[in-house]
Amino acid sequence: MKKKLLSACVALTFGVGAGYASSVLAQAKPDVLVKQRQSAMTLISKYFGPVAAMAQGKAPYDGAVAMRNAAYLETLSKMPWDGFNASTKDEKNTKALPAIYENEAKFKEAQDRFTGAVAKLAAAKDEAAIKGAAGELGKACGACHNDFRAK
Amino acid sequence: MKKKLLSACVALTFGVGAGYASSVLAQAKPDVLVKQRQSAMTLISKYFGPVAAMAQGKAPYDGAVAMRNAAYLETLSKMPWDGFNASTKDEKNTKALPAIYENEAKFKEAQDRFTGAVAKLAAAKDEAAIKGAAGELGKACGACHNDFRAK
Repeated sequence: MKKKLLSACVALTFGVGAGYASSVLAQAKPDVLVKQRQSAMTLISKYFGPVAAMAQGKAPYDGAVAMRNAAYLETLSKMPWDGFNASTKDEKNTKALPAIYENEAKFKEAQDRFTGAVAKLAAAKDEAAIKGAAGELGKACGACHNDFRAK
Repeated sequence: MKKKLLSACVALTFGVGAGYASSVLAQAKPDVLVKQRQSAMTLISKYFGPVAAMAQGKAPYDGAVAMRNAAYLETLSKMPWDGFNASTKDEKNTKALPAIYENEAKFKEAQDRFTGAVAKLAAAKDEAAIKGAAGELGKACGACHNDFRAK
């Protein structure tokens, strides 16, 4: 009964639960992968936006918000990458460029630059360090989008 | 120059950077709030799905995956709620019911049940505890969706 309820709950409420039914490692469908990776990017934007605004002097510095967001970003920065599976190559609803699947080493390098910059932001403890790390992170975002994302 | 690059990067790559320009506390637009909260739900589904499948016996138990996902879920569980702002009441692209804004105390209670269940899952250290906590979490998801989300 409990299992049945849980099953119904996951399937009904999320609509993707069924994708995991046969194996934990079962690959989600390409459109689900795209939706998941875009969701990670949306949340990265949600939490980086205010920190970037502080770093640009467009918003007053708020250390508590900056540090909370940096911690969130550290977790979120791990979430998009498994969504860039070659099975998603022909999906329409995405700005991801074929270069991602044609030059995996370079894409991995861009990911690492990004996750490294996020880790540096999350480790920053004062205003100057946070603003400096936010600048580096912004550049890492831009560099990867430049090479691997349609304008 | 650095500030300019960062600014351009946030605006161009995320498209929502401008929303934060005047104040860190500036409220994002209703459609952005909906997109952000749906993104959090999508990722909660991504990482709860496999754990739920394990708890249901539909996938082999993998402690490392379960514990990694539980830790991700603990962070993600904090992200949807500020998106349920009354300004989003008239948005079309959402299954959120008016009950959310009509009975805020009950909605908050449902949130707390959910975040409490996630915290319990994240604190679980062995297979039995993880599976038990996953069952409770599934029920918390279902109860909230039942009351506050269109079928």
